[in-house]
Amino acid sequence: MKQIGVGILGLGVVGSGVVRILQGHHDDFLRDQEIDLRIVAVSSRRDAQARELGLLDVYSSDPSSVTLNPEVDVVVELMGGTDTAYQCISDALKAGKSVVTANKALIATRGRELMYLAAEHGGELAFEASVGGGIPIIGPLRHTLASNRILSVMGIVNGTTNYMLGRMKDAGLDYDSALAEAQQLGYAEADPTADVEGYDAAAKIAILAMISFNTDVRLDQVATEGISGISVTDMHAAEEAGYVLKLLAIARREPAGIDIRVHPTMVAKTHPLASVNGVYNAIYIVGDAVGETMFYGRGAGEGPAASSVVGDLIELARHKAYRETIIQPVWDTEGLPLISDGDLESTFYLRLPVPDRPGTLAASATIFAELGISIASMVQHAATDDQAELIFFTHKAPVGAVAEALKRLNDSGILTGTASCIRTIA
Amino acid sequence: MKQIGVGILGLGVVGSGVVRILQGHHDDFLRDQEIDLRIVAVSSRRDAQARELGLLDVYSSDPSSVTLNPEVDVVVELMGGTDTAYQCISDALKAGKSVVTANKALIATRGRELMYLAAEHGGELAFEASVGGGIPIIGPLRHTLASNRILSVMGIVNGTTNYMLGRMKDAGLDYDSALAEAQQLGYAEADPTADVEGYDAAAKIAILAMISFNTDVRLDQVATEGISGISVTDMHAAEEAGYVLKLLAIARREPAGIDIRVHPTMVAKTHPLASVNGVYNAIYIVGDAVGETMFYGRGAGEGPAASSVVGDLIELARHKAYRETIIQPVWDTEGLPLISDGDLESTFYLRLPVPDRPGTLAASATIFAELGISIASMVQHAATDDQAELIFFTHKAPVGAVAEALKRLNDSGILTGTASCIRTIA
Repeated sequence: MKQIGVGILGLGVVGSGVVRILQGHHDDFLRDQEIDLRIVAVSSRRDAQARELGLLDVYSSDPSSVTLNPEVDVVVELMGGTDTAYQCISDALKAGKSVVTANKALIATRGRELMYLAAEHGGELAFEASVGGGIPIIGPLRHTLASNRILSVMGIVNGTTNYMLGRMKDAGLDYDSALAEAQQLGYAEADPTADVEGYDAAAKIAILAMISFNTDVRLDQVATEGISGISVTDMHAAEEAGYVLKLLAIARREPAGIDIRVHPTMVAKTHPLASVNGVYNAIYIVGDAVGETMFYGRGAGEGPAASSVVGDLIELARHKAYRETIIQPVWDTEGLPLISDGDLESTFYLRLPVPDRPGTLAASATIFAELGISIASMVQHAATDDQAELIFFTHKAPVGAVAEALKRLNDSGILTGTASCIRTIA
Repeated sequence: MKQIGVGILGLGVVGSGVVRILQGHHDDFLRDQEIDLRIVAVSSRRDAQARELGLLDVYSSDPSSVTLNPEVDVVVELMGGTDTAYQCISDALKAGKSVVTANKALIATRGRELMYLAAEHGGELAFEASVGGGIPIIGPLRHTLASNRILSVMGIVNGTTNYMLGRMKDAGLDYDSALAEAQQLGYAEADPTADVEGYDAAAKIAILAMISFNTDVRLDQVATEGISGISVTDMHAAEEAGYVLKLLAIARREPAGIDIRVHPTMVAKTHPLASVNGVYNAIYIVGDAVGETMFYGRGAGEGPAASSVVGDLIELARHKAYRETIIQPVWDTEGLPLISDGDLESTFYLRLPVPDRPGTLAASATIFAELGISIASMVQHAATDDQAELIFFTHKAPVGAVAEALKRLNDSGILTGTASCIRTIA
């Protein structure tokens, strides 16, 4: 029976959850995994949590009491932020320790650098909890699905926005009311920017793309659009046409390279992602051998995140205890380029606010025709007395052509407000 | 770069798929996983497939040319059946080789014995493809979710019956027509017994229970009921009440032990399993930390099964190549008893064919009342001129009490035909 020293940085919600699992399941892991996981050092800004969890005797406010502690074999980093966290993780890796983290912002920006550092010093870096909370996704991609060339990864990876879109659809709330409700329930933060503008989802898809395609992808390379522009009118139009509006994070392997982006998408109701509701997350993967698979569960919260952190911890601890497999770092073996969105094709939903008078339909249809954009269906809604809305669903069209059509529509003076333009998937 | 010799037993659909992945992705695995996987021996009854796959020079009709071949490090067993397969796998394990198999019947009956044999001789036994085809499920249970106490596992693990039930629901086909159609499409075999009577699902849930609960469960301990008794009337009643009829395989950890069974179940439409359609499979797991998760994908077919087999093969090959982690065998560490179904509680759907005359409702309601079975809702359908159908949905009731109610209803002479009794889940 091998004893493994665990050091924990950060005793917030997830950190406390990790401690509770380690305390509650210590004997289970001893019996089933043959490892004796001992919390030998913890650090957080204040000692209140350490006191509450009975860990005051191993507490210090100084993180280096964890990262440089010779009794610590595996460090669990749950302090958040990027600068101090980066410093702590590199200190620990340079000291030959393995590290588990849930820090998506850090992994999505400097993850590869840290993985190389781990490999160089004989340790490992694991970060299952950085994507999809409790949903096992990095594990399956690196183990069972390693047999596949991954063709695409698409996910609903932000519970806050999925909850808000669900309330806009089911209760008819507008964006502001849905946000206020999510904040009241604790699903959205006081400053909701990271969630509603899609940055949280962008960090997660960057990590998923890095793992899926063995290639270097960073957060700042993800084209990102949030949900703050979504109107109730768009929700209804989606519903009527057999779609559900979701904030999707998408990464695809195309012949020319990697296509990666986050934006609101109308998902056909028959697609497995369409029935992922509330704060649940799901990640949909297509591989060349396995075909379609989907992984579903809670994307956030103490239990789910702690579940993934401890799952990683057990694996790294077993490796340390039995001098076993070092998980392959994600080498940039393929070195695929990122491709520009404008070169791709997609199907679109377009909603154009126009004056209710003859000729507006003909004028907009002409612009689409000139750019070779083929219309799959069209409806006109009367909005107010002298206003109408033209709603188009297109066949596959070049993304660049649709952007140009919107520009020409704006220039033409036909529009009486801002047009909506949302991609659709079947 | 380590070279690993692969030997393959059986070159049917899945075996050929495995060969095609190994041939097509050889350089990817070399680059990303740092292993050089070489097919050094294959065996099947006839040499036609070996010839077609360009493997005639390593072909023999004698399985021992694979299992006892000193150049073979990992054996892939895809011959099917249980007796010869058992012999081949134990020969290989005794020779210190690791083994990957998709053989659910064998693993569900003698899996634990083979796992101990592997551990004794320093090899490993992996069987991801034995459950859920291409869906990564055993991997996640043994890696990421190892941090959890698994509370329940429920799955739609048989694509044939899921396809048939879908066609009965959506196209109004009766059982026989749905079966004939499934056979025509190649989804059901000429002898469909293993699928429609639930034995295939029973083997899979036995394996899932063994992994999830660290306890010994065998195929013959699973209470199994298939779909051959399902009528279109039951489908409609389910639809009307907000349920979908699915063949569920269920294993739950109860205070007294393990509850394990396979039977048709009415699943509330809001449950994630309700929207799993066609030949797709899904496995829904509840863990004490992670909460609800679900894994979805193709449960059968060349690509999906071969994907899981090669995923296992890569992992075992890396262990062999780098003398790394031996996956923990599933020790019977908890030794939980199986509990009798009659001691449990469930909610039920009951359909009683009765004569259309006064007093039948009162008579049946009285029997339920006497046994303490509380009714949640009730409707009466006129079936033919002098026949009616009473449809009850119950609150939670002891399984034994409901069985007794059915017995008393039968004895009372009220029923004009066979009653339907199907469990429901919300």
